[in-house]
Parts: sequence; C-alpha cells; structure tokens
Amino acid sequence: MQLIIGNKNYSSWSMRPWVLMKGLGLPFEERQLRFDFAPGSAFYRALESVSPTHKVPVLVEDDGFAIWDSLAIIEYLAERFPEQPIWPRDARQRARARTLCAEMHGGFGQLRSHCPMNIDADLAVVGRRLLATEPGLQADLVRVVQLWTDALNASGGPFLFGEFGAVDAYFAPVVMRITRYGLPITDLTQAYAQRVEQAPGVSDWIREAMAEKDFLDFEEPYRDVSGPVPTLKR
Amino acid sequence: MQLIIGNKNYSSWSMRPWVLMKGLGLPFEERQLRFDFAPGSAFYRALESVSPTHKVPVLVEDDGFAIWDSLAIIEYLAERFPEQPIWPRDARQRARARTLCAEMHGGFGQLRSHCPMNIDADLAVVGRRLLATEPGLQADLVRVVQLWTDALNASGGPFLFGEFGAVDAYFAPVVMRITRYGLPITDLTQAYAQRVEQAPGVSDWIREAMAEKDFLDFEEPYRDVSGPVPTLKR
Repeated sequence: MQLIIGNKNYSSWSMRPWVLMKGLGLPFEERQLRFDFAPGSAFYRALESVSPTHKVPVLVEDDGFAIWDSLAIIEYLAERFPEQPIWPRDARQRARARTLCAEMHGGFGQLRSHCPMNIDADLAVVGRRLLATEPGLQADLVRVVQLWTDALNASGGPFLFGEFGAVDAYFAPVVMRITRYGLPITDLTQAYAQRVEQAPGVSDWIREAMAEKDFLDFEEPYRDVSGPVPTLKR
Repeated sequence: MQLIIGNKNYSSWSMRPWVLMKGLGLPFEERQLRFDFAPGSAFYRALESVSPTHKVPVLVEDDGFAIWDSLAIIEYLAERFPEQPIWPRDARQRARARTLCAEMHGGFGQLRSHCPMNIDADLAVVGRRLLATEPGLQADLVRVVQLWTDALNASGGPFLFGEFGAVDAYFAPVVMRITRYGLPITDLTQAYAQRVEQAPGVSDWIREAMAEKDFLDFEEPYRDVSGPVPTLKR
C-alpha cells in the first residue's frame, strides 16, 4: 500500500492520512511528490493515472486501485483495519466523529486561505495582524475552540474521542496553523494541541517537515524564501 | 427521526439526504426552516441546540441526538439501515463512491459559487455568459462530466454505481445546476441527469421546490424577485 503525498511542510491534506497511518503503525510505503501545480509538471504527470483531480494525498493499493480523497482514504482504512481505533466504537460517537471530519473537510475556509500550513515558519506576527483584520478567521478560530472543547469534555480526552484517531489526524494541520500563526486559544485546547504535536505520527511528520527545507514561493504568501534563510515579506 | 432542511428551491445541501431518504423510503419527519442567516433570526435560533454551525441539513433522532453534516448523515443512515443500497456492497466500489462524495463535499467551488441552486429558475442565458467568462466553472463542468462518465461506464448504469444511492443523491443538486443554467454536457451524462431528475425522491423534491415560490433576494444573484413573477436582473 502506497501513500502519495506532497511537501511535508505545506501539504495539510497529505498530513491527515499519513499521521493516522504512522500513528497507528499501519504498513505503507510513502511516495513524496514535490508540489508543482502547472499542467504537464512532474507532479501533475505522476498523478495522471491515479488521481483524476491531480491532487494529493492518494492511497494506492499494490494492484493499482487508487483512492484520491483524504476522507475516503480514512473510511477505507477503517474498513480494512477494523481492529484499529480509527473511528470511535460507539455508533453515535462515530457519527459525531464523522460530522467533525466532514465539517473540516468542507469548511474552515477562512482559516485555510489566510493561514496556509507552513510547519517550518514562525508567523506569529502575521497571525496577530490577520486576527485583527479578518473577522472570518476569528469566527473559524472560535468554532475550532468550541468543537475541540465540546469533544474533549464529552470524551474526557486525552484526544477528541479518547484515543488518537481519525478526527485528531484530521485536525492535526489545524493544530499546525494555530501554533505557527500564534493564534490564541484556551488552556484546555492549548493542552490538546500540544498532545497532538507530541503524538506518534504527528511528531514524525513535524520533524520531517522541519528537515525538508524545500521552500516554494507559491506556498509562501508571508515569507521571502529567496535567501538562504526565509524572512518575513511584510 | 427528523430531518431539518432549508428552502427546497435553494438548499442544495438539504436536498442530498432528503432525496436519499425519500428515494429509499426511509421513515422521517421533515422540518423546514426558511433561510435567514442573520444571527438571532428564527432560522438561527431553531438550529441553536442541534447545529453548532447553524447550518442545514441536520438529522435529529427522537431523543435529540443530532448530526449536522450531510456526509455524516449519509454514513449514519448507511449504518442504521444496512439493508439499503446507500453505498455499493463491494468494498472497492464503496471506497470509490465515498471518494466521489468527498470530492463533491469539499470541491466544485466555482460551480457552487457561480451557479447557486435555483430549481425554479431558467438561467440558461446566465449560464451561457458564465461559461464564456469563468474558466474555473468550465473546469468544474469538465470534471463533473468525466466523473459521471467514468462511474457510468464502470457500473453500466442506470445510476453512478448501478442502483440509486448516496452518490446520486450527492450529485442531484449538481444536476439541478446543470439543467437550470443550461450547461452543456455529453449525451451519456445528459441521459443520466434526466434519470436523476425522474428518480423517486428527486422528482418529489423538484415538484415541492417548484411549488414553493418563496423567493429570497439574497439567494438570487441573477433574478429580480421583487415583482409577482421573477425576471432576469442582467
């Protein structure tokens, strides 16, 4: 089983199934493609036969069967490895967990567009400015805090539904955004964010993302990466 | 079991679980809320206790347990009514079906923003103009046609995975957009779109949407609905 991913520093969608599979110890081979969204690029061509959307992540079975959406990958893994705590065991908790993943899958547009994932970067100055000027970003942050708080209170933690599972993996890139852009959250949710950063799988991804040093200008709205060391653009 | 929905003419997300449940004959009570997104509105207040995102659809069990995302609702129904053909029986077909729903859930942004669902309206003139000026809309349309074609060729039809199921319900609002905005598709996909319009559940929704005549200016970027009969704005 192969998981095709993009740049670890930037690819928030790749991060989700990767940290879940790694965190749970599921066997897979990683294939990393450097981001390049120009039609005809090596990135584009490598995805041609496995992803009609030309997006990552893609899970490819040994015989070539491919799944090109992160949420569908997680459902597939949950069916293929039923002994793993990917979804909660309880049917209603499972429905709730899927609701939160689906909410993330289609929502939080302001957080995603204003604060693209950039694990290597310290963008606290940018984050402060964005929070002051973008009410939509504030609203997304309020909803993240509420969502995490409700889930942690219901489960008792340490993760959103008890053990580390699909929902934590799904929100791991949100943790990255909050910490890198220095967005203020509550003590309870801050402690959760820290546990996610330290979780197996997530900590591996972060370490590899930090070591990557493959800076792409089109993924850097806030940093100037033309020099030997990235600096803030504005 | 109660399904809370918005205006039938406009609410594409409400349409998805409704046509699935109706089409499969699943028992549910419909609760319709008139769209009004102002904080403090009746719409907003009615959703306060069941939907932290204040969005529809919401599935509410008799004891109050609520699911506030359309994809999570469909997964919940698939678990609760395992005898129903909501997802394909074959594991890989199911993975493929979930991929297409997830692609719809988080994608097709240009089609969704330029062509909001408006079942009552004939917007063919608008559709022609949009197609000429919006390359992103063209790209979304190309992808819809490819996606439907691949699925129909693989299954043999009449619906995307054989019988009418979750994926057809998920794309039913896309069918509405294509037909109402007169967007050109291939013969194969046109025939599929027609079968969807005529499917049980979908045809009920369309009939009720057409009878609704509750025109909301903020849902009408293209029609002037201030008169007794809506007219094109531009």
